[in-house]
Amino acid sequence: MEFRDHFPVWDKLTAAERQRLSDASFSRSAEKGTVLHDGSDCTGLLLIRSGRIRGYILSPEGREITIYRLFERDICMLSASCIMNSLQFDITIETEADTELWVIPPDAFRDVMQQSAPLANYMNEIMGTRLSEAMWRIEQILWKSMDKRIAAFLLEESVIEESTALHITHETIANHLGTHREVVTRLMRYFQSDGLVRLSRGTVELLDKKKLRALCDE
Amino acid sequence: MEFRDHFPVWDKLTAAERQRLSDASFSRSAEKGTVLHDGSDCTGLLLIRSGRIRGYILSPEGREITIYRLFERDICMLSASCIMNSLQFDITIETEADTELWVIPPDAFRDVMQQSAPLANYMNEIMGTRLSEAMWRIEQILWKSMDKRIAAFLLEESVIEESTALHITHETIANHLGTHREVVTRLMRYFQSDGLVRLSRGTVELLDKKKLRALCDE
Repeated sequence: MEFRDHFPVWDKLTAAERQRLSDASFSRSAEKGTVLHDGSDCTGLLLIRSGRIRGYILSPEGREITIYRLFERDICMLSASCIMNSLQFDITIETEADTELWVIPPDAFRDVMQQSAPLANYMNEIMGTRLSEAMWRIEQILWKSMDKRIAAFLLEESVIEESTALHITHETIANHLGTHREVVTRLMRYFQSDGLVRLSRGTVELLDKKKLRALCDE
Repeated sequence: MEFRDHFPVWDKLTAAERQRLSDASFSRSAEKGTVLHDGSDCTGLLLIRSGRIRGYILSPEGREITIYRLFERDICMLSASCIMNSLQFDITIETEADTELWVIPPDAFRDVMQQSAPLANYMNEIMGTRLSEAMWRIEQILWKSMDKRIAAFLLEESVIEESTALHITHETIANHLGTHREVVTRLMRYFQSDGLVRLSRGTVELLDKKKLRALCDE
């Protein structure tokens, strides 16, 4: 497979634009666990031939928070933040498997994107995907704590009631925790699909207290 | 001021593109507190003539989490998520002041953006800004809990030491909380600028325990 077979919107570029991109780009191999890009330096765009990469930021506790994962044929543009003034944040990009990729230097890409509506629109779609992922991550982080709080509440109720079968509605749990019934219902369904609880009308049965406790301690 | 004076990259559009946009767009006034867009419906792009708007999502507790604010001459494109397949999330957009704006219907905008490299590139810059803001928000949310934990730790230490002047280094606090010294130092500086503590070599003086307690309870 050649560069042109992997490059998106290739058939919508002019001959000169294609030339500019393929002349500038070069291939690279990276073993699993290689940091391809760190912080805000301008590595270039990464077009994945095979393998897998991920972008992450560090939490204050030093945990790695994955923001997105990319696979074959995906383009990573956050490693080329210098192509856009508005991209102002640091991210670490690392291979999660042995990876083959093409590196498209930022200057060549920017030159073509400035004049090519198809490429600029394609970039918009990628940016939209990254933005949607970031928004989803925000929700997950916000919901995460509710997830723990519900687990802790269920365990507490189980001690109080001296039973693993709790006769309690989602509405009541929501009122206890100062949230909405919909939130409790959504999270309880996740719990159920993970085998933590079994739900039936007006009853929550705790199936795996150990896992619920582990969730609280995460 | 006319539409063309507010519209970005106007002078880089063709006559036909300008016509398409100005024919389709219309002006609207909205009082402070008006919801301009809710969820994932496709209201159109909003170009602000005057006033202020913000985009927010709801936390599981029903708190409003502001993702971005926009001012005069800014364009809000998350109210037109249908123009891009990749934009997949719900956001509420509300005026924070009496606001005058132009609404650009999604079809007209998409048609012009598809063929105009300058407009598509401009959109990329806006998307980059929104993405940077979302990433910054993730950091803030992650850091927020550390902020509480440090406040709680300082209050606890103060009880243990029976003093408001704690002889403790940032390194030690970091070790207690499983984080890095840099994180503690950064947050302690915020605390100091908010009048919660006074920092000097090897000492942290608690100036406002009430505020520190409030921070823990937030």
